[in-house]
Amino acid sequence: MAEEVVLLDSWASMFGMRVRVALAEKGIKYEYREEDLKNKSDLLLQMNPVHKKIPVLIHSGKPICESLIIVQYIDEVWNDKSPLLPSDPYKRAQARFWADFVDKKVADAGIKLGSTKGEEHEAAKKQFLEILKTLEEELGEKPYFGGETFGFVDVAFVTFYSWFHTFETFGEFSTEAEHPKIIAWAKRCMQKESVAKTLPDQQKVYEYVLGVTKRSLGE
Amino acid sequence: MAEEVVLLDSWASMFGMRVRVALAEKGIKYEYREEDLKNKSDLLLQMNPVHKKIPVLIHSGKPICESLIIVQYIDEVWNDKSPLLPSDPYKRAQARFWADFVDKKVADAGIKLGSTKGEEHEAAKKQFLEILKTLEEELGEKPYFGGETFGFVDVAFVTFYSWFHTFETFGEFSTEAEHPKIIAWAKRCMQKESVAKTLPDQQKVYEYVLGVTKRSLGE
Repeated sequence: MAEEVVLLDSWASMFGMRVRVALAEKGIKYEYREEDLKNKSDLLLQMNPVHKKIPVLIHSGKPICESLIIVQYIDEVWNDKSPLLPSDPYKRAQARFWADFVDKKVADAGIKLGSTKGEEHEAAKKQFLEILKTLEEELGEKPYFGGETFGFVDVAFVTFYSWFHTFETFGEFSTEAEHPKIIAWAKRCMQKESVAKTLPDQQKVYEYVLGVTKRSLGE
Repeated sequence: MAEEVVLLDSWASMFGMRVRVALAEKGIKYEYREEDLKNKSDLLLQMNPVHKKIPVLIHSGKPICESLIIVQYIDEVWNDKSPLLPSDPYKRAQARFWADFVDKKVADAGIKLGSTKGEEHEAAKKQFLEILKTLEEELGEKPYFGGETFGFVDVAFVTFYSWFHTFETFGEFSTEAEHPKIIAWAKRCMQKESVAKTLPDQQKVYEYVLGVTKRSLGE
């Protein structure tokens, strides 16, 4: 029990994937428990009574919730390997700023691509591509968001790459054509075992999303 | 210039107040610049081009944005006095969780109190009081959210106390009657010079909000 690590998660969640990438980067063994989000376990409701959401990391019986907070916790506890946040306070603040930007902007904008039509859909598409443009500009010519090594912002954002086929299909655009540096960066991240082993196939995510959409429409 | 600290802020912002409380706790001298939010300065747009929002802390010419990120930065840079985040990683994660909860829940719910009518207003009131209940339960019998000393969650939440008269008037409730421990905690925080000197008078905030509302209605 002392060092037991359990992750309550759902395979297609880009938030849950962040925790899985961070755990893999640190080489931490853990028990993975897939949650049925339509029928949440008593353990999940007990461990995250406030938000009732995955992912939840349970470390030695104590829960940590909210993906970016979990990733910071992992980085602070297992600090002997693969640092994710830089040690300089200003660079740390910048990393937190961009991870927070991804959190506040990308998921909502992505969901809108699949839930809007007509003019609203055009606006959602424009907004999504604007967000990618802002991120592409921040990346600039650096290999990773924090500079030379894979870090906190990469963990926060790269998990969305598994949803890109879904976003692109719903939004009718090509990220490669619009923002090629984002795709080059994502492919660079995918060369890391922690990312490649964690991210599900883009087609599998798309079929899952189609299934969920059809069910919610009563088809 | 080397150690120059400038704060771009707006006096009634509970987010800006967080930074002012943190700076006061640390005893940091800084230049305060009040922003006209209807006519933002070129400096603000240059220092926070992504969100274009206050507060922005400019330290030695470099900007830090987003209030909770700024407070963490202040705590990390001026770490010789009044620690705001605990040193234990689990307690740090808990502090971040509750500060994030305040961020995600309280402001939006507070705004709804003033922008809704009828059933929607009743729902907003219920929601706001539920949020305070959750926070009251988390506080429990502790003097401060983190335990015995004033810390990160207190900084994140206490600035909303200056808006309580506004929330209560729009919501037609008494926080003291509904959640007395929250008021006792806020009054405890107000005994700290950093908080007492930063938080504006509740009546002044209310009159400001009434003025803004009337202007936005074209009265």
